Amino acid sequence: MSQTPEWVKHAIFYQIFPDRFARFGGNHLPAGIQLKPWGADPAEQGFQGGDLYGIVDRLDYLAKLGINAIYLNPIFSSACNHRYHTFDYFQVDPLLGGDKALRKLLDEAHLRGIKVMLDGVFNHASRGFWAFHHILENGDDSPYLDWFLVEDWPLRPYHADEDNPPNYQAWWGLPALPKFNIANPGVRNYLFEVAEYWLKFGIDGWRLDVPCEIDDDEFWREFRRRVKAINPEAYICGEIWQRATHWLQGDMFDATMNYEFCSLTLSYFGHHALREDYHKNSLPLKQLSTEDFTQSIDNMVAAQDWQITQAQFNLLGSHDMARPLWILREDRHALQQAFLFQMTMPGAPCIYYGDEIAMTGEDDPHCRAAYPWHQPELIDQGMLAFVRAVTKLRHQFPALRTGTLAFDSDLPEDVLGYCRTLPEQQVQVFINRGKSSQVVMLDADYNWHLVLGAADQISSRGRQIVITLPPRRYAVLSHAAVPVAMISGL
Amino acid sequence: MSQTPEWVKHAIFYQIFPDRFARFGGNHLPAGIQLKPWGADPAEQGFQGGDLYGIVDRLDYLAKLGINAIYLNPIFSSACNHRYHTFDYFQVDPLLGGDKALRKLLDEAHLRGIKVMLDGVFNHASRGFWAFHHILENGDDSPYLDWFLVEDWPLRPYHADEDNPPNYQAWWGLPALPKFNIANPGVRNYLFEVAEYWLKFGIDGWRLDVPCEIDDDEFWREFRRRVKAINPEAYICGEIWQRATHWLQGDMFDATMNYEFCSLTLSYFGHHALREDYHKNSLPLKQLSTEDFTQSIDNMVAAQDWQITQAQFNLLGSHDMARPLWILREDRHALQQAFLFQMTMPGAPCIYYGDEIAMTGEDDPHCRAAYPWHQPELIDQGMLAFVRAVTKLRHQFPALRTGTLAFDSDLPEDVLGYCRTLPEQQVQVFINRGKSSQVVMLDADYNWHLVLGAADQISSRGRQIVITLPPRRYAVLSHAAVPVAMISGL
Repeated sequence: MSQTPEWVKHAIFYQIFPDRFARFGGNHLPAGIQLKPWGADPAEQGFQGGDLYGIVDRLDYLAKLGINAIYLNPIFSSACNHRYHTFDYFQVDPLLGGDKALRKLLDEAHLRGIKVMLDGVFNHASRGFWAFHHILENGDDSPYLDWFLVEDWPLRPYHADEDNPPNYQAWWGLPALPKFNIANPGVRNYLFEVAEYWLKFGIDGWRLDVPCEIDDDEFWREFRRRVKAINPEAYICGEIWQRATHWLQGDMFDATMNYEFCSLTLSYFGHHALREDYHKNSLPLKQLSTEDFTQSIDNMVAAQDWQITQAQFNLLGSHDMARPLWILREDRHALQQAFLFQMTMPGAPCIYYGDEIAMTGEDDPHCRAAYPWHQPELIDQGMLAFVRAVTKLRHQFPALRTGTLAFDSDLPEDVLGYCRTLPEQQVQVFINRGKSSQVVMLDADYNWHLVLGAADQISSRGRQIVITLPPRRYAVLSHAAVPVAMISGL
Repeated sequence: MSQTPEWVKHAIFYQIFPDRFARFGGNHLPAGIQLKPWGADPAEQGFQGGDLYGIVDRLDYLAKLGINAIYLNPIFSSACNHRYHTFDYFQVDPLLGGDKALRKLLDEAHLRGIKVMLDGVFNHASRGFWAFHHILENGDDSPYLDWFLVEDWPLRPYHADEDNPPNYQAWWGLPALPKFNIANPGVRNYLFEVAEYWLKFGIDGWRLDVPCEIDDDEFWREFRRRVKAINPEAYICGEIWQRATHWLQGDMFDATMNYEFCSLTLSYFGHHALREDYHKNSLPLKQLSTEDFTQSIDNMVAAQDWQITQAQFNLLGSHDMARPLWILREDRHALQQAFLFQMTMPGAPCIYYGDEIAMTGEDDPHCRAAYPWHQPELIDQGMLAFVRAVTKLRHQFPALRTGTLAFDSDLPEDVLGYCRTLPEQQVQVFINRGKSSQVVMLDADYNWHLVLGAADQISSRGRQIVITLPPRRYAVLSHAAVPVAMISGL
């Protein structure tokens, strides 16, 4: 049986793209530098200066949003604003405040019960990475020659072109991203030491960038052993967009970034608003009937051990895809329903920064705009209040986190219903994605409470509860041995 | 009045070129690398794998040689075997064992009363330095644009040629060595923090590479203030080959690398063996009469405050010049006399690794060969014993370190004589560089002891001591209130 970290099952993540979430600045950062204005077009190269002190400064905002875990896109020193081009794995980027800022962030986050997961880019380095720089400088006299996969000389790190592609193995053939020779014992040890170092520093987990490009299960098994030896509750989450059963047998990852969940959820709730013409590898978008959707979700949930399912990283958006609201053609109701579904499913939900205030935008770099703290009129307070309500719901009801999942059948077309059940608690969810009002029934044997929805949606008829679902609305009811405070209707 | 560190006046330095002094290896170093064989031709690019653990391993050798201070050529991460091309100022090169190895070296050295001075390369970085890499990747969108001095785009870090020279300011126009924009407050602060960081780590001083290229006295004054605030006894020694009175007023450096001393000493003792045809900027080599030599030394000593003179870094060889034995056309007697002179002059003597065993070689890279631990037959035991004897002499007689200096006049041609005097002690040195035997006299009013030389060189005649100086020999006598153990004749 697989063993996954207990805390992840109860976590709600918030994904932060560090250069764009919040800029604190001040004299902890390098002097004599020039940043882009906050809110500049994200298509522009350069840095807008978001930093880790900025995140510390907004931890109360995150706590109020119901967040108890943060996934940070890469924070190690890099010359790209997304920082996937690492040049120093042992240093938090000075533009982010350096190691001291991470210390502060970890301390302040942990004080609030918030975990922090970092992004580990172990398949490839950048052409500015020291061992690759050694090869650039020394050619085949370099001690580190075998750390990369050089094909011929001289290397063309900065002047490769179509006729002269990079003459070393690189991720997607990009000269900026030389691929590590993972067979080299020095490389393996280096990467394991990076993983260990930051765990000892106090992080709570590793999200692994493109781990299936490292086609070496023993590498990942050793990675897991070394990580868990330091912190058995550390979370290991691989970025694999497809179904990843192979890696989820308990000996490699605890979970994957669940793009299958994302794809199904946006497809179902997007319905007529869905941009089916947005094409992204491994993110198929196609309208689904309720029956196809529930079967697909059931199939997804059953694909691996229940321990894993509860730890899966269920996202609706990320730095690598268009904003969900854009995919949903700005349909705020659809996005709300997707959030509600996400917060009531097994697996750790993750909110990509800004989705909770209805930020929108096409594929990257457009999905990486600065959070508009400087333009509060752009913050959708309705969406924010809704997201707060559904995260609160998830925290309030253990059944939503660890209860079994059973979809209802025989509901009206376009109505989704499911029950999450623990021995002592049940939560029933109904969501009407359609444009006409619908009615559903619940057996009144139980002592049900409406916990999300409007009081006038509920009435009783004999031994049955009658629930009215206006167009694009929902209702969530709980049954528990102890009474539950009603959540005000939304 | 200038104030210089007390310990320097009593120090005998040993300069180590880390890649070539001693290789310990082992599992503290990166795995999966390939080093050149120990003892490979120093003209070959690449690393022979000397490391700091190797130095630790040889500390007893150094202690026995009379060394109580080490000057290390650069040890921070670099892709060049001389490590003047720094890419990370906050990390000891992993090939040297990393920060842990420096910790070990400092602890073990300090335990033996040996100080450690590092080499600070603050005028320029390498093209692999992170902030320059930022500019390579981001062009004028880089936050660090103003940290260097870019002239036009795109930069040509790896494909500059005669027709297309580097289009940024670089040391000697070398594309590998972009010059810092020292006017930038971020750069200044970064470099000051480097200096402070390693002093707090425990080093005892900074040798400054090409400091006069940083044409900004206020930079160096601030540097001194910040260094001395952490350790008032830290040594600041600038690499300025010429007379450097401007920097030696007490507000910038404690001393300079005294190439003037080197030039005069090799010229005088080299005599007929001197390679006058070896041309090196600021290292004039030209045979000198005894009178010209003593006048030049007097002039050199008087050029700055006596505090400074006592702290000057008196070298006979370095990584930047041909081996002194090569300059002396392999004349071992001449080298011994130069060592004797060096050890009996005011100013801290420095032995460049291997000179004490008569290593020879032309200008760099040939002066950077591996110490022949692996070929003990190449170790000149006679030279080693002599150097041990003269370092012992210096430690034994405080007058040789801090006593006043007075040259004798009216001695035979080719005989050098001088006296070092403290209130309680005098040491008299005679050196005959010539090919014929000479006789000199000392007034026997004093209670003189022969402390270096052979007993049969001394006789008495009435109230005078008669000292015979066979060709190419020397005699050192001391007078003190307390008897002094005779040093066995050599």
